[in-house]
Amino acid sequence: MPVPTIEWIGGVDGKIKIIDQTLLPNELKYVYCEDRESIFHAIKTLMVRGAPAIGIAGAMGTVVSMKDCKADDYESFYRELKEATAYLGSSRPTAVNLFWGLKRMEATAQENSQKPVSEIKEILLNEAITILEEDKKICRKIGENGEAFLKEGSCVITHCNAGGLATGDFGTALAVMFAAADKGKKISVYADETRPLLQGSRLTAWELKNAGIDITLICDNMAAHTMKRKKVDCVIVGADRIAANGDAANKIGTYSLSIIAKEHNVPFYVAAPVSTFDMTIASGEEIPIEERGPDEVTTISGNKIAPDDIKVFNPAFDVTPASNIKAIITEMGVIHNPDMEKVKSVIGNNS
Amino acid sequence: MPVPTIEWIGGVDGKIKIIDQTLLPNELKYVYCEDRESIFHAIKTLMVRGAPAIGIAGAMGTVVSMKDCKADDYESFYRELKEATAYLGSSRPTAVNLFWGLKRMEATAQENSQKPVSEIKEILLNEAITILEEDKKICRKIGENGEAFLKEGSCVITHCNAGGLATGDFGTALAVMFAAADKGKKISVYADETRPLLQGSRLTAWELKNAGIDITLICDNMAAHTMKRKKVDCVIVGADRIAANGDAANKIGTYSLSIIAKEHNVPFYVAAPVSTFDMTIASGEEIPIEERGPDEVTTISGNKIAPDDIKVFNPAFDVTPASNIKAIITEMGVIHNPDMEKVKSVIGNNS
Repeated sequence: MPVPTIEWIGGVDGKIKIIDQTLLPNELKYVYCEDRESIFHAIKTLMVRGAPAIGIAGAMGTVVSMKDCKADDYESFYRELKEATAYLGSSRPTAVNLFWGLKRMEATAQENSQKPVSEIKEILLNEAITILEEDKKICRKIGENGEAFLKEGSCVITHCNAGGLATGDFGTALAVMFAAADKGKKISVYADETRPLLQGSRLTAWELKNAGIDITLICDNMAAHTMKRKKVDCVIVGADRIAANGDAANKIGTYSLSIIAKEHNVPFYVAAPVSTFDMTIASGEEIPIEERGPDEVTTISGNKIAPDDIKVFNPAFDVTPASNIKAIITEMGVIHNPDMEKVKSVIGNNS
Repeated sequence: MPVPTIEWIGGVDGKIKIIDQTLLPNELKYVYCEDRESIFHAIKTLMVRGAPAIGIAGAMGTVVSMKDCKADDYESFYRELKEATAYLGSSRPTAVNLFWGLKRMEATAQENSQKPVSEIKEILLNEAITILEEDKKICRKIGENGEAFLKEGSCVITHCNAGGLATGDFGTALAVMFAAADKGKKISVYADETRPLLQGSRLTAWELKNAGIDITLICDNMAAHTMKRKKVDCVIVGADRIAANGDAANKIGTYSLSIIAKEHNVPFYVAAPVSTFDMTIASGEEIPIEERGPDEVTTISGNKIAPDDIKVFNPAFDVTPASNIKAIITEMGVIHNPDMEKVKSVIGNNS
């Protein structure tokens, strides 16, 4: 079992327990978020990250935001809840799961508008915990649906961290690898270190090593040479938002990796839950790309690695066109050669 | 004028003065190499780096290696010189300029075998200084031959550092940019940071900023997204060894960048002196690729960024096929759409 990235502690007055992922792999430290500001900060600063995990964090964040709400009528309560979800939603603009989690909490409140506020608070907590439990099942199902893509001896390249640390359980891209390994297949993995925040070297390498999977770390710019000179059978990555046509936003560098994979005829797979699809967006062009501050690029562990006051372009995500994706692996099935029609035929109106 | 990367101080008993590039941009510190061990160490640990600069370092390294030679007959002297060049040549296996510099020193000794050893020592020093002076002229000429590829407002992506710090003077890839800027063209540059050793953020960003050129730093994995979403007119990089057919070995990540450029129809140029060509090698497949230790990837500025004992693949170079190169800019002219015939027609038997 992976170490739980996010948990709820206590009852309706409880708190969110998360791993501070910014400190891994050097330190495994837990942080407790008891109010909206602390969970906002945790999402914003990437203590908790990974599209499914921040969906859960958003839902649980709604609960901690509302626990001290003094309103005793539904109208006032809901007005305050909407303020809370708007605030939490502003922490990170790209991953749709966050908005999905927040909207589900809003809908849950609305469905129960006739009940007393104290009861609604209990129902919201149950909903957040349900989202976490569902996510665990989704991870297992993604693993089951994808593991056939890996054979005995398969070698995979992955980018960023779409593992247990990014979800409630086994991850998405890594779930496929864990499921293959569980079936007794001996696989090996190259993990892109994933600059600037090194989720590959800090998180993916740590998770796969802990799981006993053969893992080799490379810099992002080594993937092309690795495909050229070594045996690489496929690429598997996660996603932060998928448009209706199958275009997938994921950690910066994923698009680059998809081009390189195409050049070397290496199949490129995306593993993501249905909650990652944003059917209101026709193509990847419409996905907003979060740009983060220059310090992530110019300093590492507090050490300056670039000249003072240098201009930096730091997009946190890029968009891989559906045409570069061989298949999207979801909990509801595999979408081969994705386009709008095939996406709809597998996930229906679930998103 | 760029800060001189490498100089000779004193007469035949003198020493090599280099910038310790591993400390840039935080500290501009000079190191003096007075014997073969210290210059070997400086090349090996990348205090001095860049193909042309290590050619010069190899030539000057031969002089410091031989200054204390007690032999008074040519045979013994030459035997010792061959030992010295073999030792210096083992410091880095990929860049051909090192071997080119060492061979030129051997040839100079042989051409003067009839002279007294003390005189040969003087001649060798003059030859090393001549190599440095020639390199300065070569840099200017590469700049002149390439600057027409840049127009007013052109935006360039470059990788690693092929600037003044890599050569005796203005660089190779950066010489093209400096020459265009000298002609009054306003250009802008995105510099790949160039993991693992960050020559882009530490050296290229520093050089271009000092020269007043509009420079923006990106991580290597952001180049594809940058080409997709911003206006990028071309890529210009240096080279460490070019095969007879035009395949070019350069810093790891260059091959990756060439694939991405091709995908976006962005012309990809290599700027390199004729000494970079290795006409004994038919194609890039034959170029040995230096693999360096894991610490370069797992630690930055002494800070651990990966789990303990993780396996690392750390190739220092990759090979860009000639088919991905729009033109190679040399001091003897531009080789458009390079192949074996066109390479020969421009550089003849000069290498």
